Amino acid sequence: MSTRVHPGLLEAIRFNADGLVPAIAQQHGTGEVLMMAWMNRDAVVETLETGRVCYWSRSRGGPWRKGESSGQVQTLVELRLDCDGDTLLLLVDQKGVACHTGRRNCFYRAARDGELVTIAEVAIPPTELYGSGF
Amino acid sequence: MSTRVHPGLLEAIRFNADGLVPAIAQQHGTGEVLMMAWMNRDAVVETLETGRVCYWSRSRGGPWRKGESSGQVQTLVELRLDCDGDTLLLLVDQKGVACHTGRRNCFYRAARDGELVTIAEVAIPPTELYGSGF
Repeated sequence: MSTRVHPGLLEAIRFNADGLVPAIAQQHGTGEVLMMAWMNRDAVVETLETGRVCYWSRSRGGPWRKGESSGQVQTLVELRLDCDGDTLLLLVDQKGVACHTGRRNCFYRAARDGELVTIAEVAIPPTELYGSGF
Repeated sequence: MSTRVHPGLLEAIRFNADGLVPAIAQQHGTGEVLMMAWMNRDAVVETLETGRVCYWSRSRGGPWRKGESSGQVQTLVELRLDCDGDTLLLLVDQKGVACHTGRRNCFYRAARDGELVTIAEVAIPPTELYGSGF
């Protein structure tokens, strides 16, 4: 995919005071919500132009090309924008696992009877994703 | 539903500097992502205790009991928390439509060939949801 991004699309996105917009990643086809992360303007453009999902890492303060170190890349299927322009929904094809814990998605803790319980197992150990230095 | 919320659950949520956490609402069963909004601590507690989804309205600066004026309530099925504790996923049963535009979900604009196009029709006119004063 190599899409030229029209200026009107970027103007419709309401980035926050830090220049960021939240982006929900959802597995295309199954509807599984994989994760939520943040994008700046450059990350949106790169994602649309390359078809590979790139976020903005708030902790590192730089672009976060999903899967760059773990190999668990996200291929963009479609980018959607909500009614007030301040949240993105990314339909993606997730290779392997989305979560750094090695689970398929990040939402593996559920409130049951008022307490958090773990509802998903690790699919790929983090040592396999990031090496033994993890 | 009337669930007593254990302190450990609230301590696991990392609210931002404004005391808020983003919450993604997903239709239980179909997987449709309906909307994203924000919750403060009280909204999380009220939602878990009552089983009716309550957000925090950043524009009004007060609790936003979803459907209070429109009748389009969200019933909580399950609340989930992500790996780093800073995003909630709410599995809900959405009555009618989630979006104030009268569409089923808020993500009705999609990037196609670099431009935004509308991909969902209005299901219930806003005048029916909010009266003719809308």
